[in-house]
Amino acid sequence: MKAEIISIGTELLLGEITDTNAPFLAAELPALGIDLYWVSQVGDNQARLAKALKRAWQRSDLILTTGGLGPTADDITREAIAEVMGEKLKGDPALERDLREFFTRFGREMPLTNLKQTNLIPSAQAIPNPNGTAPGWWVERDERIIVAMPGPPREMQSMWRETVLPRLRQKAGGTVIVSRILKTFGLSEALVAERVSAQLSSANPTLGVYAKTDGIHLRLAAKADSREEAEAMITRVEPHLRQAFAEHIWGTDSDALEAVVGRQLAKEKLSLAVMESYTGGLLAASLSGCPEAAPHFKGGLVTVSDEARVACGVDYRLIAEHGGESPEAAPAMAEAARSRLGAAIGLGITGVDEVDAAAAKTSGVYHIGVVTGREQRLASGRYPGSRLRVRRWAVAAALFELWKVLAD
Amino acid sequence: MKAEIISIGTELLLGEITDTNAPFLAAELPALGIDLYWVSQVGDNQARLAKALKRAWQRSDLILTTGGLGPTADDITREAIAEVMGEKLKGDPALERDLREFFTRFGREMPLTNLKQTNLIPSAQAIPNPNGTAPGWWVERDERIIVAMPGPPREMQSMWRETVLPRLRQKAGGTVIVSRILKTFGLSEALVAERVSAQLSSANPTLGVYAKTDGIHLRLAAKADSREEAEAMITRVEPHLRQAFAEHIWGTDSDALEAVVGRQLAKEKLSLAVMESYTGGLLAASLSGCPEAAPHFKGGLVTVSDEARVACGVDYRLIAEHGGESPEAAPAMAEAARSRLGAAIGLGITGVDEVDAAAAKTSGVYHIGVVTGREQRLASGRYPGSRLRVRRWAVAAALFELWKVLAD
Repeated sequence: MKAEIISIGTELLLGEITDTNAPFLAAELPALGIDLYWVSQVGDNQARLAKALKRAWQRSDLILTTGGLGPTADDITREAIAEVMGEKLKGDPALERDLREFFTRFGREMPLTNLKQTNLIPSAQAIPNPNGTAPGWWVERDERIIVAMPGPPREMQSMWRETVLPRLRQKAGGTVIVSRILKTFGLSEALVAERVSAQLSSANPTLGVYAKTDGIHLRLAAKADSREEAEAMITRVEPHLRQAFAEHIWGTDSDALEAVVGRQLAKEKLSLAVMESYTGGLLAASLSGCPEAAPHFKGGLVTVSDEARVACGVDYRLIAEHGGESPEAAPAMAEAARSRLGAAIGLGITGVDEVDAAAAKTSGVYHIGVVTGREQRLASGRYPGSRLRVRRWAVAAALFELWKVLAD
Repeated sequence: MKAEIISIGTELLLGEITDTNAPFLAAELPALGIDLYWVSQVGDNQARLAKALKRAWQRSDLILTTGGLGPTADDITREAIAEVMGEKLKGDPALERDLREFFTRFGREMPLTNLKQTNLIPSAQAIPNPNGTAPGWWVERDERIIVAMPGPPREMQSMWRETVLPRLRQKAGGTVIVSRILKTFGLSEALVAERVSAQLSSANPTLGVYAKTDGIHLRLAAKADSREEAEAMITRVEPHLRQAFAEHIWGTDSDALEAVVGRQLAKEKLSLAVMESYTGGLLAASLSGCPEAAPHFKGGLVTVSDEARVACGVDYRLIAEHGGESPEAAPAMAEAARSRLGAAIGLGITGVDEVDAAAAKTSGVYHIGVVTGREQRLASGRYPGSRLRVRRWAVAAALFELWKVLAD
């Protein structure tokens, strides 16, 4: 099945918003065995949209559109599809009833302009939208499908998951792609690729190596006639990869590093406190913002100067001797956070980032100290890039050190 | 001038990366008076790319491509352009010399595969790429232009700024669009739109109202035959808007709230410390990550429990009486941060976010306290949405409160 995505909205062409719907849908299609060949963006212009739809109708089996289903005059997706299909728009009484109820629930009267959202053409079925006023359209004719979904990502994604994805899964039948992502930290992309160079040329399952903000991901994807068969193919290869990267694999598929660490803390009934300068609060934010980690996170001290480090409990003599950005400071910061905030585990991260290091002609290295009641660990690292990228990387490095301590 | 953007790369169609190049370029074109009608993504497939280029050549005056200029076999942009133009690729000796020098600078020998990056066709001129091995192409024929740029955003953006933008500015001539963005906080989108309803229907300059993570933006855009004329049109309207929103406008154009606050702190020679629970470290991260604010930021205390608040200097009696998430706690947290970290200004932010509030059946309100030597202020607010959105919004609210205190 050949697919095509059309994202609709003048705000996309003005660069006012970035289209995240097309990448979301693109990432969903491989698992259905659907090949995506074309993605395009069109403004709120009926003639140009109709042209794009006509061409898509000629070359693709499945056309996914997002946007242009709102109630205002510049929402023209329904009109353009009707034009291309040569069918007439007609208000649907059931849809109108649903929409009036939607407004009643929020204690408001339905504006007349919203009536156009109840229009259908004979080849179109409405797709429910529990999160907004715009129903989607499922258009099927001549062995081709157009699925029109609303533009707001939240509405589009729930419509996709609840209705479109299950229906397409039935339609697509035939080939199924199952994937497994193994997430590693602590090795470079080149090193990872080298260790699996033999498998990289395998045609099925395929293996891909991707550098992400939380380390290097290995992605296995198997194509087969059934889910069971594809899963069996993955199961045959996965253990070899796990063996090759054992101490580096911290998670799979949709795992996030802070959630994995949160689950470890829950299992061991341990609490955590951090003192950070290099990451300036980002580490605390990632722990406090994660539902799995937050209950075990006691708090964070963002100490961007020696003065602040000492005020938060680091011994001034250690700072005076070694400096607040030294490898020696990291475990001392960890211990201060631990005792100050009464946690079982303390983590300290310090260092001079590349941007400041370039000015100060120092190294740009970060130091991470982890302190528990029984042991103390230190890890240092370096990562090039912009300030935000470097800080995000250091957050991942700090969480990975925690993961290792907790996994032992 | 009608423009079209083609983003090239199979990784885009697999949803593995989001195309940020097209939105970047889209946002640059209006100021040149160039209208963008089409944006599309194509995989690393020469036949499909050639098809897309052929169609673009028929309907657009300017075609901007990004990606597909690397040294490997699946980089096929040069080949596809040559095919569409019916011209032959030929290695350019000057380009080859430059490329060999690029490798020499990094102490490495040039792999033979990179030779293809020195190819040109007769209608193409090379565009220098100071950040990578792939030169761009400027192709001009039959009053049409193709500009092929590399895919990595850093390389693309500097090539755009240094060479492509200045050349297009000359070519485009004619109409110029100048825009001015006024950034507000503290009013809802509907309220802002209501106050400027008369101007919203103006055809030139146009006025747009946009809800962003740092408040509501007003965007004026004037179209004229010269930059001077367009600027004069903006200058006539801007004062009325400034008057309508005076106490809410904290910045213009590319201003960021934390940078504006950082400049205020620099001007007043004041330092800042924060204690945050509601935002869990994000406020500290935004201050420490901003070059303008970081020098004046003394540190942050992320106190996600009463225990942590007391350990960081908040009076336990106040907590016992009012609770750590109360309006009373916010200024107390501000004062504790201020005195603990020795700063001129303290800011505290607390509250229960919507997600937890729904479970605990409380309000989901945040409280922000700002304390200086002379005064103490309290502001409370509420914002619906996901945890991350709510936290980002609260960071903006906290920075806006600081801005107000410093502006007085």
